[in-house]
Amino acid sequence: MRVYLAGPDVFLPAAEARAAVLKSICTRHGLQGVSPLDPLDEEPEGWSGLPEAQRIALRNEAHISRSAALIANLTPFRGPSADVGTVFEIGYMRALGRPVFGWSNSAAPFNERTRAFLGAAAVRGPDGAWLDHEGMLIEAFGLSDNLMIDAAILASGGELFTAAVEQASRWTDLAAFQRCVAAAARKLLSSPSPP
Amino acid sequence: MRVYLAGPDVFLPAAEARAAVLKSICTRHGLQGVSPLDPLDEEPEGWSGLPEAQRIALRNEAHISRSAALIANLTPFRGPSADVGTVFEIGYMRALGRPVFGWSNSAAPFNERTRAFLGAAAVRGPDGAWLDHEGMLIEAFGLSDNLMIDAAILASGGELFTAAVEQASRWTDLAAFQRCVAAAARKLLSSPSPP
Repeated sequence: MRVYLAGPDVFLPAAEARAAVLKSICTRHGLQGVSPLDPLDEEPEGWSGLPEAQRIALRNEAHISRSAALIANLTPFRGPSADVGTVFEIGYMRALGRPVFGWSNSAAPFNERTRAFLGAAAVRGPDGAWLDHEGMLIEAFGLSDNLMIDAAILASGGELFTAAVEQASRWTDLAAFQRCVAAAARKLLSSPSPP
Repeated sequence: MRVYLAGPDVFLPAAEARAAVLKSICTRHGLQGVSPLDPLDEEPEGWSGLPEAQRIALRNEAHISRSAALIANLTPFRGPSADVGTVFEIGYMRALGRPVFGWSNSAAPFNERTRAFLGAAAVRGPDGAWLDHEGMLIEAFGLSDNLMIDAAILASGGELFTAAVEQASRWTDLAAFQRCVAAAARKLLSSPSPP
């Protein structure tokens, strides 16, 4: 059963090798990992003239549409939240109604992580809520990222796994990913009607 | 025709007043702006026992499902990219196959904005591509954000409007939003089969 592996892992220096490692873990759990770097079996004819960015995006959308579930690397990327490309893909899969799983090498709550990112710019407002220097609210639901992400994973029947990993290891440590793949396999392979 | 107004505007200090202003601009163009802050006409019974974050998320998903198009505020939010909640919603609407429009009060290309965010940590790799301090690639397609976002807007039949607005005015200046709503109205109200 195909599982789309969303994440900023595609930006890593050895992205192809990384994809191979993630896929091998999926294989070990009886799932077929699909990387955003994988070509499509058949690319629609009309795509050949499109700019590269457009082709990559359409290919990723097609991969998601052909997968039974999505596993997202939510490790914070250049800011307090997950990579936006990954989050787009979570929204896409959520609308398709299939399970979305997430894993992150940050175990800190989103509120705490955002405040650490903002530093002295984060202050308490008159009602005690944390705000940034422009008075914009910092979510405080005890979730691991923006509520749309955590809630989508939960509502979709997926699960979220976090691990407190040192900064230097956050793009190599795969313990949370392995737990996530195991959970996805339990869910998908026990399902009576696999897509 | 309903248009969902996605954006980090919900975090602004006067979020309700902001939503009213955005909606009034929609009304002027013949569209019904739907804010994430709006209640549903009828909330499913089962939701009453859910945690607040979960209810908000399900409500936003329901609003999107009931809208003919989505207009997203892509102004960078706590990092070089758009707010992840907004990007989730773009992905959701994209999977529904309806038009996604975007506007941003940053006109800088994503690559340039990411490098400004990273500062001295951004360096050129051996092949000339820009990398961060961990060797992770910085997208260089000349787009305004991660390629999934720009490409989705284009492929959906929507449009993206950017304006070079000073930092201090980026949560108040609505010139790009107005152009965006006008374009959405042209597209939606000339359509032969409005959803």
